[in-house]
Amino acid sequence: MIHFSINKAIFIQALNTTKRAISHKNAIPVLSTIKIEVNNEGIGLTGSNGQISIEHFISVQDDNAGLLISSTGSILLEASFFINVVSSLPDIVLDLKEIEQKQVLLTSGKSEITLKGKEAELYPRLQEVVKTKPLLLETKLLKDIINETAFAASTQESRPILTGVHFVLTDNQTLKTVATDSHRMSQRKIQLAKDGDNFDVVIPSRSLREFAAVFSDEIETVEVFFSNNQMLFRSQHISFYTRLLEGTYPDTDRLIPTTFNTTVTFDTANLRHAMERARLLSNATQNGTVKLEIQKGIVSAHVHSPEVGKVNEELDILAVDGEDLIISFNPTYLIDALKAVGNEQVKISFISPIRPFTLVPNAEGEDFIQLITPVRTN
Amino acid sequence: MIHFSINKAIFIQALNTTKRAISHKNAIPVLSTIKIEVNNEGIGLTGSNGQISIEHFISVQDDNAGLLISSTGSILLEASFFINVVSSLPDIVLDLKEIEQKQVLLTSGKSEITLKGKEAELYPRLQEVVKTKPLLLETKLLKDIINETAFAASTQESRPILTGVHFVLTDNQTLKTVATDSHRMSQRKIQLAKDGDNFDVVIPSRSLREFAAVFSDEIETVEVFFSNNQMLFRSQHISFYTRLLEGTYPDTDRLIPTTFNTTVTFDTANLRHAMERARLLSNATQNGTVKLEIQKGIVSAHVHSPEVGKVNEELDILAVDGEDLIISFNPTYLIDALKAVGNEQVKISFISPIRPFTLVPNAEGEDFIQLITPVRTN
Repeated sequence: MIHFSINKAIFIQALNTTKRAISHKNAIPVLSTIKIEVNNEGIGLTGSNGQISIEHFISVQDDNAGLLISSTGSILLEASFFINVVSSLPDIVLDLKEIEQKQVLLTSGKSEITLKGKEAELYPRLQEVVKTKPLLLETKLLKDIINETAFAASTQESRPILTGVHFVLTDNQTLKTVATDSHRMSQRKIQLAKDGDNFDVVIPSRSLREFAAVFSDEIETVEVFFSNNQMLFRSQHISFYTRLLEGTYPDTDRLIPTTFNTTVTFDTANLRHAMERARLLSNATQNGTVKLEIQKGIVSAHVHSPEVGKVNEELDILAVDGEDLIISFNPTYLIDALKAVGNEQVKISFISPIRPFTLVPNAEGEDFIQLITPVRTN
Repeated sequence: MIHFSINKAIFIQALNTTKRAISHKNAIPVLSTIKIEVNNEGIGLTGSNGQISIEHFISVQDDNAGLLISSTGSILLEASFFINVVSSLPDIVLDLKEIEQKQVLLTSGKSEITLKGKEAELYPRLQEVVKTKPLLLETKLLKDIINETAFAASTQESRPILTGVHFVLTDNQTLKTVATDSHRMSQRKIQLAKDGDNFDVVIPSRSLREFAAVFSDEIETVEVFFSNNQMLFRSQHISFYTRLLEGTYPDTDRLIPTTFNTTVTFDTANLRHAMERARLLSNATQNGTVKLEIQKGIVSAHVHSPEVGKVNEELDILAVDGEDLIISFNPTYLIDALKAVGNEQVKISFISPIRPFTLVPNAEGEDFIQLITPVRTN
C-alpha cells in the first residue's frame, strides 16, 4: 500500500509531462488514467494513448523532490482529475497514502482529499523495446531536425506511411530524415558525431512533435533504442516510447532535381511576410494560389480574387539569375517552408512552371533541401 | 472618394477597438463590416452588433497617428478581413485610396492591395442619444463596479431583465448597482463626487463587460448620456453605445437580511482556494454542493462524492461568532463572490441553513454586499 510525501511543484511537473501522452477521450478507458508505481528507489509515473507512452521517474536521490517513501505499491488514478486535485492542494508538500479498497488519501496543510483509484494490474503492457546499444543524440539537434521536417508530413490517413518522417542511418553515421505529403517535401541530412547501428524507420510526425514538447532544452542528450515496431527516446528521468509506422517509405531521392533554369535569393523573413499578405487574398480564390513573376530581374507576386480584391507586390530580392519565369503555387507551402529555414537568406531554384522548385538555406554546409510542387493555373 | 495616409500601428489599434462591437456571424450581414468615415477633422470608425456600437475617432491633430487626409468620403469594409490585411502590410505607414466602384487601394512599401468595399449608405442608423448634460464618471470606478456586480447577472434569457445590471442614481449622488440571477446577488453603492440627474436603468451585463475591455485605464473619465432605450459612454476618442433592457427590475432591497445568528471572518484568498478544491469533487456529486460546518469555533468544509472521493478540510478563520450551523451551497457561487471582493478579509453572516447568507468585505466604509442562497440537501 503506497505511502509517500513529496514536493508538490516537482510532482505536478512530472505529472504534467506524463499527461502529454494521455488522451482524455481514449477508446480504451483505462488509458485515461496515470499509473503510479512506487518502489524503494522512487516513483514511476506512466501515461499512454496506445501510440505514445511516457514514463517519468522521480528518484529519492533528487533533493528538489524531497521524496520520502514509507511504503511501496502501485495504483491507477484518473489523470486529469488527479492533476487538478494535486494542483489545488494548499501546502508546498503533499502526503499520498493508499487506504482501503484502492483509495488514496491526499493530505496537504489542513486539507484531506480521498480519491478512488483502480488496480494497477488493469493497465495494459505497452512498451517492448530491448535497451541495448543505444544511439546517442543531442536533444537540440533532434528537435531542430523535427522542426525542419515533421511539418511536411501528411495529415491525411489515405497513405498512412506519409504521416511519418523517414529516418535512415547509413554508414553508421549519415542520418537522412525526409517527410512529404506529395505536395511538398523536406529533407535534412547530418553527419552524427558518434557512430551507431544503421536503421531505417518511419516515425509518426505527431510523436515527433510530442517528443519536442516533452524533452526540454536542459536535457542535453537522449539515448535512442529501436525494436521491430517501437522506439524509445530516453533521458535520465524520462522514457518516451512511440510506435513506428509499418510499410515501405517511397524513394524520395529521385524527386530532387539537380539542374535549374532560374534561381532567386530572398531575405527569408521578407518573403514570408509577402506570402502571408498574398495568402489573405489567395484564400478567397478558386485555386488558392499566388503567381510569382520573374521578369528582367524583377520578381513580383500577384493574386486576383474576383470577390475580395487583389495583391500586386514587387518582392525584395538579393540576387536573381537565369531565365524569366511565371509560376503559381499555394503560398501556405512556401510559408511553411520558410518557417523551417533557420537561415536569414534562402535560395529558390526553378526548372519550369510545371516542375517542383527547391528551397535551400543560402549558407555553406547546411544539407537541408525542400521541394514544392507548383499548381497549373491554365 | 477617400484618400489618406496614417501610421499603421495607431490605425490597427483603433480598428481593433472598434471591432470589439462587431460579431463575425451577425444575422444582419452589413454589420460584419466596419464603417470608415473621413472628413477634414479625421477618421471615424464604426462597428456594431446591433446591441453595442463603438465609434472610434482618429484626429488629424493626433501627432502619433501621422494622419494626412487628401480627400474625404465614407465606405464599408469587411471588418476582420480588412484588419488582417492592414496588419500584414510591410511599412509603418499605409496609404488608403478609394478607386472606382467602391474599391480601396492600400499601398505600403512596395505592396499594393486592392479590396472591394460597400456603399456607406447601406449601414444602418444605430445611435440615438441626445448628448446633453452628461454624468461624469471615473473610468476606474465604473470598471470596479462592473467587476463587483456584472458576474452575478443571469446568463439565461428566461427572465431577460436579470441579464442586466440595475443602475439607479438617487438624490443626484447615490449610485446603487445590483445584479442577481436569483441564486446570488451582488450590490454596490457609492456616493458620486459630482452631482448628476437621477436615473434608473438596466444595462446588459455583456455590454458592461465590453465597456471594461474597450476603455483602458489610461482613459481617466467618461461622460455618460441616457436616452429612452440606449446609453452612451464617451471619452475623447471613443463613443460606446449600448441598448438598455426594457422592463421593471425586481425590488432587491427587501431581500437583504439585517440580523444574523452566525458570523465568520475569513482570509479571502484562503477561503477561495479551499472552495476551489471542494468544487473539484462537488462537480462529481448529484447536487454539486459543499457542506460548511461551524461547530465549537471550528469551521470545516466537506464534500462526499460516492463515485470520485471526498474532501474534508478545516478552514483557516480569523474570527467566528454566534450559533453552530451546518449549511450547504454551490461552491461556484462563493468562489465568484470571493473573486469580486477586493479586500483581503471577508465577513460571512448566516441566519439558518435555509436562508441566504451575506458576504461583505471586512473593512470600514465599503458599501458592498453579496447574497448567496443555500441548497437544501435533505
